Amino acid sequence: MAQRDWLEGGGSRGRVVMAAPGWSERVRELLTRMNSFHGAGSSKALCLPFMVAGQQVGHVPQAVARCLCQYPAVFSVSQGDEAPARVELSLQLASYEQRTSAVQGVLRDLRAQQAFPCLKEWREELYNVMPYFCDPPLFSMERAATPLFGVKCYGAHLNGYTWRNGQMHMWLARRALNKPTYPGLLDNLAAGGIASGLSVRETLVKECQEEACIPASLTALAKAVGTISYTYEGARGGIYPECQFVFDLELPEDFVPQVGDGEVQEFYLWPLDKVKEAIGSPDFKPNCSMVALDFLFRHSYILPDEERYYAELVEGLHRPL
Amino acid sequence: MAQRDWLEGGGSRGRVVMAAPGWSERVRELLTRMNSFHGAGSSKALCLPFMVAGQQVGHVPQAVARCLCQYPAVFSVSQGDEAPARVELSLQLASYEQRTSAVQGVLRDLRAQQAFPCLKEWREELYNVMPYFCDPPLFSMERAATPLFGVKCYGAHLNGYTWRNGQMHMWLARRALNKPTYPGLLDNLAAGGIASGLSVRETLVKECQEEACIPASLTALAKAVGTISYTYEGARGGIYPECQFVFDLELPEDFVPQVGDGEVQEFYLWPLDKVKEAIGSPDFKPNCSMVALDFLFRHSYILPDEERYYAELVEGLHRPL
Repeated sequence: MAQRDWLEGGGSRGRVVMAAPGWSERVRELLTRMNSFHGAGSSKALCLPFMVAGQQVGHVPQAVARCLCQYPAVFSVSQGDEAPARVELSLQLASYEQRTSAVQGVLRDLRAQQAFPCLKEWREELYNVMPYFCDPPLFSMERAATPLFGVKCYGAHLNGYTWRNGQMHMWLARRALNKPTYPGLLDNLAAGGIASGLSVRETLVKECQEEACIPASLTALAKAVGTISYTYEGARGGIYPECQFVFDLELPEDFVPQVGDGEVQEFYLWPLDKVKEAIGSPDFKPNCSMVALDFLFRHSYILPDEERYYAELVEGLHRPL
Repeated sequence: MAQRDWLEGGGSRGRVVMAAPGWSERVRELLTRMNSFHGAGSSKALCLPFMVAGQQVGHVPQAVARCLCQYPAVFSVSQGDEAPARVELSLQLASYEQRTSAVQGVLRDLRAQQAFPCLKEWREELYNVMPYFCDPPLFSMERAATPLFGVKCYGAHLNGYTWRNGQMHMWLARRALNKPTYPGLLDNLAAGGIASGLSVRETLVKECQEEACIPASLTALAKAVGTISYTYEGARGGIYPECQFVFDLELPEDFVPQVGDGEVQEFYLWPLDKVKEAIGSPDFKPNCSMVALDFLFRHSYILPDEERYYAELVEGLHRPL
């Protein structure tokens, strides 16, 4: 585990350490990668708009669109010869419930066919689908299927911080090795996707309780401080437009998070220089490292006259979905 | 002055007041306007790339490009018949000094011809021109001319805040009536463009001293907290891609800013509900109201489960340049 040795062997006790050579370039590259859907060489131009009730709610890769042709009662797929290229949810499905049920049926069938590897991560967890977070949901979709349709997903992430000897430290989690995604990587103290029916704050309280045994009374002190947003294309062709609502929570010095539901193997309390070094490394779940990076900017740990790519990195944390 | 009556008559003493009807829509519209160069109906597709030493550093509107044809020793203008459409600074001008001097000569001539109204606001203040803030400047250009070339401009803005009866308040300035731009409008406590040769922090210290008589020892406590960025097209066709480095400064309760160089007529100490109401109103200089809006998000004064457009507004504050 050379990566972990490199990380955990580092980290000075001083207030400010020089970043390792290439930190700026590595982080710039992380943000480019996390916005790869809008970059050169992406499949963006080949994806079909996913239309529901006349509104675009996603981007469907060609391979998925071809597969959806099997289900003409649910999806109409125009390849652009007669009508404009698009995947449209049948207009016969007129209600939230009808759409949810019909799509869920198709997805269960595709899962049984083993048509797409991502459906192996089926969670029985529904995410709302709508053009923007502020819009009423048009239907809900199994979480594991969202990259097949490039629909936007939302989450809540917590930066938990405290003080040791007058120095700010951040709590980080290491994901369990049996997590379906990013096993064994560094994560924020608590984080989770916003499932259908839960508010942003409810999601945060739930994840804090389940993952780190943070009582609701303590999570109530967490401050909403903005979002990060990005769209990347996965290695297997899935499209991930994501927005994470970010919260900061100053924890009492004597508070220690506890492993809850087993999604985390261990917690670390790291000085910010060590957190900074981990950002952009392969050891840190990429979107969680963006959340920590946003924290470092907002808490003045990265300075405009010292960080060459300051303006560019802040922009890269907040791309329009 | 119905607008000012409306603003100054408002503002309750309570911790949280309901926003006036339409606040969300008004602020969303502000951000759309501040990013109008990327929106429908902009002249973006008609502008010519502005190339210097092989790198694009701006967007030149057609009317400006036609005018620059008068100066073939400095600018070569291709309209797309033979070469790709572009305005290129002569490659004969090989150094920073040569480019700066040649462009400055053309601009003084255009000013004398009264070719463009924005040149009436000539300031004898040079801004660096480069593809990104992190790059070495290719040359410098009179500040008033930058919208003619759509080159990126950078500034430093200060959110000054303090406490009254346990409630956070923000200091705002009202711009003098003789300012060439946005006279009489609300502004951040101190702000200014980053002129050639000054760092971000030096610009902040200078503006705080000059505009609000904040001593350098106090400004030193200001925390860098990120940027806002946007690109709009002005009413007269100028292109404004701008990035403002944002600082927060918690001021002592007994500190009162003083009018310095006469760019400000008056300072106000407002509760955040009153600041919030002013954002997006015609009384607030638009980019300064974005800086204040970013403050309200970062300080948890706007909440994801209460503000319909939360995710969209945060994205709108941070558009890539």
